Amino acid sequence: MTLLEKYKAKQKELNYLGHAMSLMHWDLETTCPDGGKEKLSDAISFFSTEHFKKATDDEFYGLVCKLSEKEEFDKLDDVMKFDITRTKEQLDKMRRVPQDFYEEYVKTITASSIAWPKAKQNNDWKSYEAPLEKTIKAVKEYKKYVSPDMQPYDALIDDYERGMTQGKIDAVFEELKEELIPLLDKILACPQPDHSKFTMKVPAHEQAELCKFLVEYMGIDMERFAQAETEHPFTTNMSIDDVRITNHYYENEVISAIFSAIHEGGHAIFEQNVDHKYEGTEGASISYMGLHESQSRFYENILGRNINFWKPIWPKVCEIVPELKTVTLEEFYKEINHIENSLVRTEADELTYCLHIILRYEMERAIFIDGADVKDLPKMWNDKMDELLHVVPETDAQGVLQDMHWSDGSFGYFPSYLLGSIYDGMFLEAIEKDLGSIDDILAAGDIKKITKWLNENIHQYGATRISSEVLEAVCGQELSAKPLIRHFKDKYAKIYNF
Amino acid sequence: MTLLEKYKAKQKELNYLGHAMSLMHWDLETTCPDGGKEKLSDAISFFSTEHFKKATDDEFYGLVCKLSEKEEFDKLDDVMKFDITRTKEQLDKMRRVPQDFYEEYVKTITASSIAWPKAKQNNDWKSYEAPLEKTIKAVKEYKKYVSPDMQPYDALIDDYERGMTQGKIDAVFEELKEELIPLLDKILACPQPDHSKFTMKVPAHEQAELCKFLVEYMGIDMERFAQAETEHPFTTNMSIDDVRITNHYYENEVISAIFSAIHEGGHAIFEQNVDHKYEGTEGASISYMGLHESQSRFYENILGRNINFWKPIWPKVCEIVPELKTVTLEEFYKEINHIENSLVRTEADELTYCLHIILRYEMERAIFIDGADVKDLPKMWNDKMDELLHVVPETDAQGVLQDMHWSDGSFGYFPSYLLGSIYDGMFLEAIEKDLGSIDDILAAGDIKKITKWLNENIHQYGATRISSEVLEAVCGQELSAKPLIRHFKDKYAKIYNF
Repeated sequence: MTLLEKYKAKQKELNYLGHAMSLMHWDLETTCPDGGKEKLSDAISFFSTEHFKKATDDEFYGLVCKLSEKEEFDKLDDVMKFDITRTKEQLDKMRRVPQDFYEEYVKTITASSIAWPKAKQNNDWKSYEAPLEKTIKAVKEYKKYVSPDMQPYDALIDDYERGMTQGKIDAVFEELKEELIPLLDKILACPQPDHSKFTMKVPAHEQAELCKFLVEYMGIDMERFAQAETEHPFTTNMSIDDVRITNHYYENEVISAIFSAIHEGGHAIFEQNVDHKYEGTEGASISYMGLHESQSRFYENILGRNINFWKPIWPKVCEIVPELKTVTLEEFYKEINHIENSLVRTEADELTYCLHIILRYEMERAIFIDGADVKDLPKMWNDKMDELLHVVPETDAQGVLQDMHWSDGSFGYFPSYLLGSIYDGMFLEAIEKDLGSIDDILAAGDIKKITKWLNENIHQYGATRISSEVLEAVCGQELSAKPLIRHFKDKYAKIYNF
Repeated sequence: MTLLEKYKAKQKELNYLGHAMSLMHWDLETTCPDGGKEKLSDAISFFSTEHFKKATDDEFYGLVCKLSEKEEFDKLDDVMKFDITRTKEQLDKMRRVPQDFYEEYVKTITASSIAWPKAKQNNDWKSYEAPLEKTIKAVKEYKKYVSPDMQPYDALIDDYERGMTQGKIDAVFEELKEELIPLLDKILACPQPDHSKFTMKVPAHEQAELCKFLVEYMGIDMERFAQAETEHPFTTNMSIDDVRITNHYYENEVISAIFSAIHEGGHAIFEQNVDHKYEGTEGASISYMGLHESQSRFYENILGRNINFWKPIWPKVCEIVPELKTVTLEEFYKEINHIENSLVRTEADELTYCLHIILRYEMERAIFIDGADVKDLPKMWNDKMDELLHVVPETDAQGVLQDMHWSDGSFGYFPSYLLGSIYDGMFLEAIEKDLGSIDDILAAGDIKKITKWLNENIHQYGATRISSEVLEAVCGQELSAKPLIRHFKDKYAKIYNF
């Protein structure tokens, strides 16, 4: 066997272990009965440990190092060049972390992950303070091992959105803040639409059928797709040809299910359309969360919250869910674009969502850059809520304790959500330049033309282009919040008549 | 680590691999989209090979051999004594098969498994003759390696129903044949019930809800249970605490879905109620298909086709499936006990099903004992259909080609289905002796009392009692077809008024 064949054989084995782990996670969330969850979790740990052992052992690392040497590397095709470069980089990072530190780190994260839901449930910030403080310290230390040349918070941002920096984020978030707060005040001064018609109860099986119809309409290849029900919606994939989403179907929350389906459907379309030549390699492993969110949010917000998305399919939608016949399309459109100041990020509308993220980013900067004291976080949260959204939570459960991200050490993740929307403003401009008005395309029932554009310009490259490279290639310009701001101003001026 | 600890550590690893394989099989049948099936099958092969390698390697076999030596063996508890004995026996069998023969054997079976569906679809017996002939030869040879001291067909029967022999089967099947053919003639001479009311269309989600209700009513622990949809219903389990069944929900076949649910529910109740002390050991791995079928068929036929099963729940059944309000319980009862001579085993009623099995058993005996020529099988099939069921298929697709069992070498499996029913006649007598009339118990809505009896007398022992031991312990007697015959005669005399 050649070096490359040996490497590929080991990579295949790692992929099989990865397949088992992904499927077991999927099963844990979708089908596994409560009684089986402990054994399933044990099995996941086993395969996870096996994977880690095999991925970091000297034999595999040796192969990667040899294939990275100029003479061997030059012989590789582009797919394998990308794969070897990324794999080497990751292994180098992992191998810099001392074993005993890593074990301690996992224990610390686990402790705060366990403390968080209890603290939230009991509205007991105090019980969470010490575990969170330890987690912040451990994350800082971890990043110093993994990325010794970077400031820890920049390293965290880079983890979730490669190539992104605080400097770039500061500029666009600041601009958004300046524009969105007055826009929001203007909207909230207008008469608000009437909620009262949206109390219809829709059986789960109708919701599931509607969601299936919607993602197929968007352009999901149903031969390589599955959907199931879970408490929290997510997207996962076993391969490019086996991409799955989940959703929740609460009787009185059909609109929530609809937008979860469209959102996860956007993630799934990205995963399905990576070029098959990258299958099983790093090129198909897309860890740029900003870019990934840009795809889900493009479908959810730019397309799904546009009235023209619904025009060609409204009769079909009402056929699948007859309960929606009690409202007009116009009323439905107003409902799905209803703006209000609220306390909880996951329930926020498209516009205030941006401010929820900016709040979290500013808090993370305070923690990692200004060294803010953990005990001051609840007050900081409430002050910022007042500044940005003019509402203040009465409890920490509805405030600083609402999200799980910090409890498992995922600092630096939040900005990705908003970066996704900022990219979307830019992508929207690029699409309209190439294809004409999306209103017209959607109204004609041609959403798949937009999907094709996204496939060709973004999806096919998988992980081989980071977000800034995508922006450069697709929009010919650097990160800018202006297109998104323009889009918001135009859209809401029409909806709220100002 | 002690010897036993080392053994248990390896066993645990094998169980994790088994968990991955079972879950992947489940996913292949239930959720995996077509696009993902090839990769999933590759992953199953990988884990299957890994499992085989680890289960048969010298290290594991060495541990098993050492633990089998008197001094070590005597120190083991009963659970591990059973486990080590069975594991040693299986490994000894496997290790007697030469590697190159085994590879050839797998190829032969694969070829006939591929040839069968095509031959059935095209009604082309000729194309299947040669692959089937090779498979029969390969199976005979395989059995000589594995069980050199047994006649191959006895070894096959023993594979699927440990301890069973042709002699015992001959006696009970012959008796059944003698009694059932005239009984059937008598029934078929009576006026037949009116089918025409049973054309209702029932949506899949109602069928799924009804099936869930029924298995819960029977006594399934829903905390340790899951159900999903597949083309062919089956039961599988990841552990005692994670048992799953599947079903099909065709709009116009609600009765088929109902009885599949009750049947698979019976298998599932068996698996759920094995004593937890056997978890992860051979004691929890029940490979006695006759005994397993006795449990599924007890619920399906003895309980589910008794009108008293339905009396306490009929209003609830009609609430879940309002389409059933178009028939009375009496009409439903006649429909589910409607006897007719038909060509296809899987569509046969409770009574003619017995004769379908006897036909297959007699054919298998002809093949393995009398050395019947493969090319004569279609004629033999048709002649036997005429003799036993007085109907003759017009095509081989509806005749000798209808079942997949022979194509994958599963000779000796068929008798288990009927053995299960024969045991059921005996179990019914034992239960009525202990608890009183099942009519009364069912009518009172006390089916869980019967389930409890089965749990205590049969299920808890898992694989540690073979069928003959169960019969001895529970019924105090050897295999006999008389109770089943009595049950049939009583039941159908009442239904058909003779």
